[in-house]
Amino acid sequence: MDNVPGLAEIRAAAQRIKPYMHRTPVFTSLTLNEMAKAELFFKCENFQKTGAFKVRGALNAVFSLSEEEIGSGVATHSSGNHAAALAYAAKLRATQARIVMPKNAPSIKQKAVRSYGGIITFCEPTLSAREKTLEKIITETNARFIHPYNDYRIIAGQGTAALELLEEISDIDLVLTPVGGGGLTSGTALAVNACSARTKVIAVEPQNADDACRSFKEGRLLPSVNPQTIADGLLTSLGNKTFPIIKDLCDEIVTVNETEIKEAMYLIWERMKLLVEPSSAVPLAAVLNGKVTVKGRRAAIILSGGNVDINNLPWN
Amino acid sequence: MDNVPGLAEIRAAAQRIKPYMHRTPVFTSLTLNEMAKAELFFKCENFQKTGAFKVRGALNAVFSLSEEEIGSGVATHSSGNHAAALAYAAKLRATQARIVMPKNAPSIKQKAVRSYGGIITFCEPTLSAREKTLEKIITETNARFIHPYNDYRIIAGQGTAALELLEEISDIDLVLTPVGGGGLTSGTALAVNACSARTKVIAVEPQNADDACRSFKEGRLLPSVNPQTIADGLLTSLGNKTFPIIKDLCDEIVTVNETEIKEAMYLIWERMKLLVEPSSAVPLAAVLNGKVTVKGRRAAIILSGGNVDINNLPWN
Repeated sequence: MDNVPGLAEIRAAAQRIKPYMHRTPVFTSLTLNEMAKAELFFKCENFQKTGAFKVRGALNAVFSLSEEEIGSGVATHSSGNHAAALAYAAKLRATQARIVMPKNAPSIKQKAVRSYGGIITFCEPTLSAREKTLEKIITETNARFIHPYNDYRIIAGQGTAALELLEEISDIDLVLTPVGGGGLTSGTALAVNACSARTKVIAVEPQNADDACRSFKEGRLLPSVNPQTIADGLLTSLGNKTFPIIKDLCDEIVTVNETEIKEAMYLIWERMKLLVEPSSAVPLAAVLNGKVTVKGRRAAIILSGGNVDINNLPWN
Repeated sequence: MDNVPGLAEIRAAAQRIKPYMHRTPVFTSLTLNEMAKAELFFKCENFQKTGAFKVRGALNAVFSLSEEEIGSGVATHSSGNHAAALAYAAKLRATQARIVMPKNAPSIKQKAVRSYGGIITFCEPTLSAREKTLEKIITETNARFIHPYNDYRIIAGQGTAALELLEEISDIDLVLTPVGGGGLTSGTALAVNACSARTKVIAVEPQNADDACRSFKEGRLLPSVNPQTIADGLLTSLGNKTFPIIKDLCDEIVTVNETEIKEAMYLIWERMKLLVEPSSAVPLAAVLNGKVTVKGRRAAIILSGGNVDINNLPWN
């Protein structure tokens, strides 16, 4: 896919990936509605296959490849949910996923990749080491590189979550997503813009990894500088495919601090009984701390995933 | 209600309480199915109002009372989910709930009762102190006593969870419940027996609080002796209303140890992303440790609740 995906491509992605994933439920909470003075709808991608929305994009990319193209497997660098998602998708197509991971990647993430048969190659925890190691693997194996977010097939796949949301919940005033590399945000913005032009799309980012917010304000792509946040899914910077879509179609990008993220995550756990990872709590943090105007409105939040080390919680 | 409830009473309870609670979802997990070599269905009462199935019985009892009967409020002794459930039900009927709690009751449980406007009276952590304190309150206020489980209105209310389960999932071979005082188990046994006679009902109990198992085997009511278990919802002993129903209608009562409970709870958190309390994990512990025969069968488990102190998890 060489062009920005439109509604047709996102719908095609939804059809393509449907047999291999869950249609996740949408939850509500009166307590959180009262706190926000709004109607909130939570799209529970923590219940998604592999525990995160990432599987949507990975499935779409892997199932878009022909038998010939997939023959030598797929490869990526990721220490997070894309790694497990790609391993899962590759397993379904009976091919290999080769994953480059920094050698300090949490053992729980390594375990997830291996549980789907993925092959891990460790490298130093730097971007250049990641890229060099991946390049070497691709040269040696001829595997197809599936980027975690800067890929139109990935973007179209991630957009399918918003498609389901809009089908299920009527009259949504705004959709909030966490933003890291921008795959989920750009996919959501494309889907929402095509299906419900009046619905706003707002991305929320940790203050300590605010490249998207700065890029959006300045109108040009600025990378993250030494990002440090408990929202470990949001450390990456926007790419040259995700940024233009976000620049054109998002209404706003706001930031939240680490305490706000932690408190919002605690509330989702305690009040909704949903096990979500810190990245998932970032949009609710914005809602509860007045970073976006939701009063009296219907706001949907995509809970991006539930892959968190339950032996090591941020409030312990 | 002076007689053992039949299907008509459980159906009437379902109608009565429907406006005030959730129809909770039924979740599945391929990973756990593979581990159990069975098809498992999890009825998610952790998502229920007040975070536990207990609200079903409390609502049924409170909404069964006439305006006159409810005028002086309701009262109970409980350090657990029944306390919050009764406070919630009383609030809906604009009356008072007075709750006797041991003075060492976890602050999270106290907070829940107060959040629904319940009035707490503390007592020493002994059964006789509880009973005396409650008696005094009832004498002084003329409040109606709503027992946590040994009450046919409560039993009928708890039976509504199984009613929903049987409506939604076809051909269930067995239903597993955790058993403490027996309200959920006896209500489930009555509903299942009336709606699907071929479906077995199996209660699962912590080995360290095995009064139900011993009573079932001996055919007479034996109280718990110094029960100690992380499944804090299951410390109570069967009552003279719940035991005869369980004796007649349950197929089996099995026990699991503390490690088995902890491991099953961890799996539900990690693999299903469901925040459940230790009591909820007790039936899965039985399934995964060969205490019940499920191979190739369709087994439903009632996840009883999600009220757990997330600052103090059993594996930390």
